Amino acid sequence: MPPTTLTGRLFQIRPMGKRLAFAVLRCLDQEYLCVFPGRPDIAEESIVRITGMLRPAEKSRKFAEEIHVDDVQVLAENTSTTTMARLRQLPYSRDILSDQHVYMRLPEVRERLLKKWTAIKAVRDLMEDERYVEVQSPRIVGSMADGPTMKFKVDFFGREAYLSLSNLLFHTAFVAGDFSSVFEISPLFRADINHSSQHLSEFLILEVTAAHRGRDDMIALSDRIVRRVCAHTDAPLPDEHLADIPVVTYEDVVAITTKSEDHAPLQRGDRIKPYHARTVARHLNRPLFWVVDMPAHHKAFFSSTRYDPLVGTEVANDFRLYWDEVGIIDGGERVTSPQRLLERMAEQRLDPVRFDYYVKVVKSGLPPFTGLGLGIDRLMAKCMSLANIRQVVPFPRFIDHLEP
Amino acid sequence: MPPTTLTGRLFQIRPMGKRLAFAVLRCLDQEYLCVFPGRPDIAEESIVRITGMLRPAEKSRKFAEEIHVDDVQVLAENTSTTTMARLRQLPYSRDILSDQHVYMRLPEVRERLLKKWTAIKAVRDLMEDERYVEVQSPRIVGSMADGPTMKFKVDFFGREAYLSLSNLLFHTAFVAGDFSSVFEISPLFRADINHSSQHLSEFLILEVTAAHRGRDDMIALSDRIVRRVCAHTDAPLPDEHLADIPVVTYEDVVAITTKSEDHAPLQRGDRIKPYHARTVARHLNRPLFWVVDMPAHHKAFFSSTRYDPLVGTEVANDFRLYWDEVGIIDGGERVTSPQRLLERMAEQRLDPVRFDYYVKVVKSGLPPFTGLGLGIDRLMAKCMSLANIRQVVPFPRFIDHLEP
Repeated sequence: MPPTTLTGRLFQIRPMGKRLAFAVLRCLDQEYLCVFPGRPDIAEESIVRITGMLRPAEKSRKFAEEIHVDDVQVLAENTSTTTMARLRQLPYSRDILSDQHVYMRLPEVRERLLKKWTAIKAVRDLMEDERYVEVQSPRIVGSMADGPTMKFKVDFFGREAYLSLSNLLFHTAFVAGDFSSVFEISPLFRADINHSSQHLSEFLILEVTAAHRGRDDMIALSDRIVRRVCAHTDAPLPDEHLADIPVVTYEDVVAITTKSEDHAPLQRGDRIKPYHARTVARHLNRPLFWVVDMPAHHKAFFSSTRYDPLVGTEVANDFRLYWDEVGIIDGGERVTSPQRLLERMAEQRLDPVRFDYYVKVVKSGLPPFTGLGLGIDRLMAKCMSLANIRQVVPFPRFIDHLEP
Repeated sequence: MPPTTLTGRLFQIRPMGKRLAFAVLRCLDQEYLCVFPGRPDIAEESIVRITGMLRPAEKSRKFAEEIHVDDVQVLAENTSTTTMARLRQLPYSRDILSDQHVYMRLPEVRERLLKKWTAIKAVRDLMEDERYVEVQSPRIVGSMADGPTMKFKVDFFGREAYLSLSNLLFHTAFVAGDFSSVFEISPLFRADINHSSQHLSEFLILEVTAAHRGRDDMIALSDRIVRRVCAHTDAPLPDEHLADIPVVTYEDVVAITTKSEDHAPLQRGDRIKPYHARTVARHLNRPLFWVVDMPAHHKAFFSSTRYDPLVGTEVANDFRLYWDEVGIIDGGERVTSPQRLLERMAEQRLDPVRFDYYVKVVKSGLPPFTGLGLGIDRLMAKCMSLANIRQVVPFPRFIDHLEP
């Protein structure tokens, strides 16, 4: 048999006495056990070209094949002192971010990122099966940057512009343009000062907008999306927790947290805090649950609302998915009446002139429609039981962190 | 049979005498012919709910079913004077951009956008079949914003940052992290003052980076991608023009344009101008062709080059796909030697300190690798024979155009 030549990254060099050393060669599709006649004088994690005899790795359970090295040539030396072995010993911290290119070589980090990336592809396939098309909205926006959220400013040829906070105003224009079922997976940007482990300044979101569909349809679609992502990431949830995700109202959350003695109860009208959500999850004995019918004043101007005679206030036709204390999905039916839209803007003290294109879109005739946003990084972190969403983003952006 | 209720957009209302009117109702999945007992007093392109008897549309070739209207209710009136019918009469211009939500209702515009969006999904499917994974690089970048191209500035918590010009430096980090075959479809941003019909300030690009693969592999992959996009957009090209795309060298372009009397020839060392590319296309009698071996000084610092004894100068190991005069793909083998990288930076008078993370990545050991970028909007416009790439972007961004 002629000798074989393999090119890849050499690591885990382990001398076995003076006349033998083992190492691992990571090639394009496979890892090989390398058997050296003595310890090779090569920096770990260099790129090498090895020539030798390839054989089935009979003594190993980890490798299918081993190569008995006749010749080795260093193509690209690792001249850094940072190696996989060194990074593996460190706890996850932001220091690792300056060595992501090495950190990603670790099998567990590689698996985590591959799960995320293949799950995103699986969501795109699901949305295609559901007959949605993926659209693209601009990242640089002017007056369509809605509401009070903190924005990143962009200098657009001397004019003040912003990085997109949401694509949903554009999705409304697509619906007005008779694209009835659209979605978009894209980065959004928020400039708020937030040091939490669940926030990024730039984050990936799935937004879905559908005409002629209401809240129940979109909750059902969301459940299918979440199930698909959980399946692709081996999320540690029993099937029954995904098959039938419970729905509670905001009023139920008030009642549950009032009965519970864990924390201060939710005061009617206030926002649900993480500890309220945890109390509800514990009460339901379910990590995933929907909350619907939030107070109208919690929701943006484009959200459709109704008077609830039982509560005696205006509530939204909305839906929010919690996974324990973390909000994963936010959605709701949208306003299609221009008059109601202007009322909602007035209630929120927004100047309709700032949203003149959106008002124009609504005045052109909109079918009933519903939209939602799903925080992909948050969902992935939950599926993989990671404490910090930065762990699923190789080059995260957050306050005071821009490099590399 | 009980009456049917349908909800959708009503248009093309055509009275046929006093006792009959026809119209079209566009619903979620289908268009219906509506038969009214007299002209309905409804603004065209309003959203209506119609109740009536549904029958096979026996007299029509365009519609499968017709509804004989008993009752009609306006759910959302179109109060705008802009209608499909009106926009159809206008030539394409930037004035249309303020009415995109109506313009998209036109069947030909709808078809154009659907072709683009489904072609992008088809490219993602192809890349998955080719065993590439889609990664995400950040849009907000600091020192990784390379080279002399004009950048959009972002205020990142008081620090000057930029919108991404290219993901390829991040892709090199993924390759260093042993992700051998990655791609990304994402918006990039260029702030150069350019009024051409082929430029946008924000544009969609496919970037592909592959370890252990060289120029020939990536040209072959590119050919497969272009064929896939052409098939999904019904591009008016004979199969043989796609099956075997010719490859010429930069020196060939010098020779061809020197022999031709159409225009001033390409002077060795200068950049290929659109009229040079058109001359080559005419000479080859092929709209699509590759140019390889560009002068080294045309290419960015990370491009691998070699001395060509025939020409007597340094040339790049690169590849560029032209479709007539438009550059669609740019790619090349990359530098993996830290020493060569620093030489290339010195030649281009770039400060290595500005690229310290990139230098660190290269010093950590890189396999041979090749990258490319494909301008999706440009390719789509060519496939659909559109003069302006803005025609495939619903909300384009270009100099002095930010709204909506």
